[in-house]
Amino acid sequence: MGTDKQLTIGLFGFGVVGEGIYKVLEQTPSLRARIKKICIKNPAKRRNAPAALFTTDKNDLLQDNDINVIVEVIDDADAAFEIVTTALQNGKDVVSASKKMLAEHLPALLELQERADRSLLYEAAACASVPVIRNVEEYYDNDLLHSITAIINGSTNYILTKMTEEGLDFKQALTEARQNGFAESNPVLDVEGYDAANKWSILLTHAYGMIAAPGSFLFSGIQHVHSLDTEVAASRKQVIKLVARAQKLTNGKVAALVLPQFVSVDDHLAFVRNEYNGVVIESSFADKQFFYGKGAGSFPTASAILSDLAALRYNYKYEYKKRYHHKPHETDHQIFLRVYLSFQTVADLPREKFEWIEEWHAGQERSYCCGVIVVERLTENDWWKQNGISLILLPDPIVEETLTRKLRQRSLELAGVI
Amino acid sequence: MGTDKQLTIGLFGFGVVGEGIYKVLEQTPSLRARIKKICIKNPAKRRNAPAALFTTDKNDLLQDNDINVIVEVIDDADAAFEIVTTALQNGKDVVSASKKMLAEHLPALLELQERADRSLLYEAAACASVPVIRNVEEYYDNDLLHSITAIINGSTNYILTKMTEEGLDFKQALTEARQNGFAESNPVLDVEGYDAANKWSILLTHAYGMIAAPGSFLFSGIQHVHSLDTEVAASRKQVIKLVARAQKLTNGKVAALVLPQFVSVDDHLAFVRNEYNGVVIESSFADKQFFYGKGAGSFPTASAILSDLAALRYNYKYEYKKRYHHKPHETDHQIFLRVYLSFQTVADLPREKFEWIEEWHAGQERSYCCGVIVVERLTENDWWKQNGISLILLPDPIVEETLTRKLRQRSLELAGVI
Repeated sequence: MGTDKQLTIGLFGFGVVGEGIYKVLEQTPSLRARIKKICIKNPAKRRNAPAALFTTDKNDLLQDNDINVIVEVIDDADAAFEIVTTALQNGKDVVSASKKMLAEHLPALLELQERADRSLLYEAAACASVPVIRNVEEYYDNDLLHSITAIINGSTNYILTKMTEEGLDFKQALTEARQNGFAESNPVLDVEGYDAANKWSILLTHAYGMIAAPGSFLFSGIQHVHSLDTEVAASRKQVIKLVARAQKLTNGKVAALVLPQFVSVDDHLAFVRNEYNGVVIESSFADKQFFYGKGAGSFPTASAILSDLAALRYNYKYEYKKRYHHKPHETDHQIFLRVYLSFQTVADLPREKFEWIEEWHAGQERSYCCGVIVVERLTENDWWKQNGISLILLPDPIVEETLTRKLRQRSLELAGVI
Repeated sequence: MGTDKQLTIGLFGFGVVGEGIYKVLEQTPSLRARIKKICIKNPAKRRNAPAALFTTDKNDLLQDNDINVIVEVIDDADAAFEIVTTALQNGKDVVSASKKMLAEHLPALLELQERADRSLLYEAAACASVPVIRNVEEYYDNDLLHSITAIINGSTNYILTKMTEEGLDFKQALTEARQNGFAESNPVLDVEGYDAANKWSILLTHAYGMIAAPGSFLFSGIQHVHSLDTEVAASRKQVIKLVARAQKLTNGKVAALVLPQFVSVDDHLAFVRNEYNGVVIESSFADKQFFYGKGAGSFPTASAILSDLAALRYNYKYEYKKRYHHKPHETDHQIFLRVYLSFQTVADLPREKFEWIEEWHAGQERSYCCGVIVVERLTENDWWKQNGISLILLPDPIVEETLTRKLRQRSLELAGVI
């Protein structure tokens, strides 16, 4: 039987998440976790907790030997990194929710955890309340894990849902998302895919043992998705989703991507509407597993942190098994993607980027073209992002067989490229 | 870092599950697990594995000190119990898929595990490939776990789906389920709810620390669900599902049930069609989490067993935290249930069993009545099962407030009972 130790917590941040954690721990003594001190930035703000708990000096928490756990729920990634590293060095376990900080510093944090022999848990950093990190870490052996596809950003999913279901264009949907609290006042991090890429980077480490910083794989957001695209989707009984994908290839490498994708209305991911998150895991024998829940917001984040605290009582640590005990997988940058590109004028579209073209649709207002492109060509100068081209993956987007040169030439001829 | 030990396996049973496990382990040496010996009943049958692997003498496995793990995938619950207990006593870890055996013997097996200091894992015994046991054991602190509702029997869900979507009656749907391999030739265990109750019994121990043998809570199957009932469901934008439910009550006890229930078509559980399983977990802050996947069949079962084997390499054990480290919850037998009963003739319905009646619909072919009944009254002589009455819970079936005596009398008067 494991131990069930008492946790004495130093909490950084007292926004809605921090306050939620404080309240639950106060009301539920059986959780055996007590907040001793809370570090805040602005001492003038009125707080719903005894004044004696608060301090503005981080050392009141980090240097207190009585405190054995640091919980960090602040917004500033750089400050979070300093807090987390100091806490681990000082022999404290840590729970963090800072996905950006984690994604950027994972190699250093892995090393530090091992050296300090402490635990750093961060279930809240990916899909919040959906326990996806622990499930991929513990439950799916990487030799048997075929793929993970997921909707891991609530803001963009909310916007895409409004575009699909209410026929709004991107700007209208973004405004509605802001009004309803599902997008930040500065929505760039969400809308352009940075947030999803950060979460994906963390999950890739637990799923396949890969260290893949957000810049090392292709990602994009939904800022160029046009209402014509959602109409095309509807006509094909599909919806557009921002899909994060990790997929094992026949060559043993892993394809990692975060891109908008057409998804059949029957697909598990189509079930994920509005601000929700969903993860589909495909493994040998098990067919598809689907995990679904609230992926953002103060309550789901607090819930994930409480689960991490419960695990710390039993000295739980991520073992990073896929990294340390197996051969970690490599990212493949040569994959062929089946894509849909929509654009305003034909001149915008560099057709020679395609390996082959499968469909071509010219319209007065907007045109689109479907075909296959090597992922490397998409990262060249971000040409499609700059020309207002909307890039959306087609269903089952990864092509593992390539056409013969002759067929390729024929397809390009048909499309009038040569 | 945990160890990553080599597993030497003794396998009991070489049906489709056993053979599947054998094949994967052969093809995937990185799993670090090798089958040394396989015990079978019928030596005459042709097997797709070297003859030297097979034996009919269980002691060739149980007494071999070289074998450190016993995997048991046989059909006979009594034989399974003997194998599992002997293996644990002989210092071997065990992976089992026998839900009936586990549900019936859980107290004895808990004790034995502790005494022997070995690990007994059985993720395959509930929802097969969906990792629900490990998730409720590890991730949801019981003080924060409000409820679990689940579809945990694929056969009955397949039958109900056919009744709903194709307008079949129960017998036609059962025949189709048999033809497509989703029901046993003797379907009583599935159809009358025994299989679901066994799984639920196991999950209750991991979710709430309760020991609740199948006989200790109310359960039923779908054998009395009538096509009128599915029509009523459709008219209310609902579907009928066999729902297993564990719900914490305001008095701190837990209501445990497995009964057919009307479920809104928008509900997560309505997404679970055909032979699939789904589990909805509600906890503080996290709102609803939904886990979905294949809950039966040889491949999903093999997949769960492979995950258990992977966990054994790291000496994983269920800690039964909710039982040993928390105050286990008790079952409440006094709960008020909001039910729908349909029946052929009014005389079949003992209206005095109701606390109060909310709706009454008389039809020429069949009639139905909705109201509230205390769970204890439903277990009295199984009157409803015997009279061909179809009992289906209404959405949100547990009523925690009771009407005043006066209101109750009035409702019974309206229904013509007094």
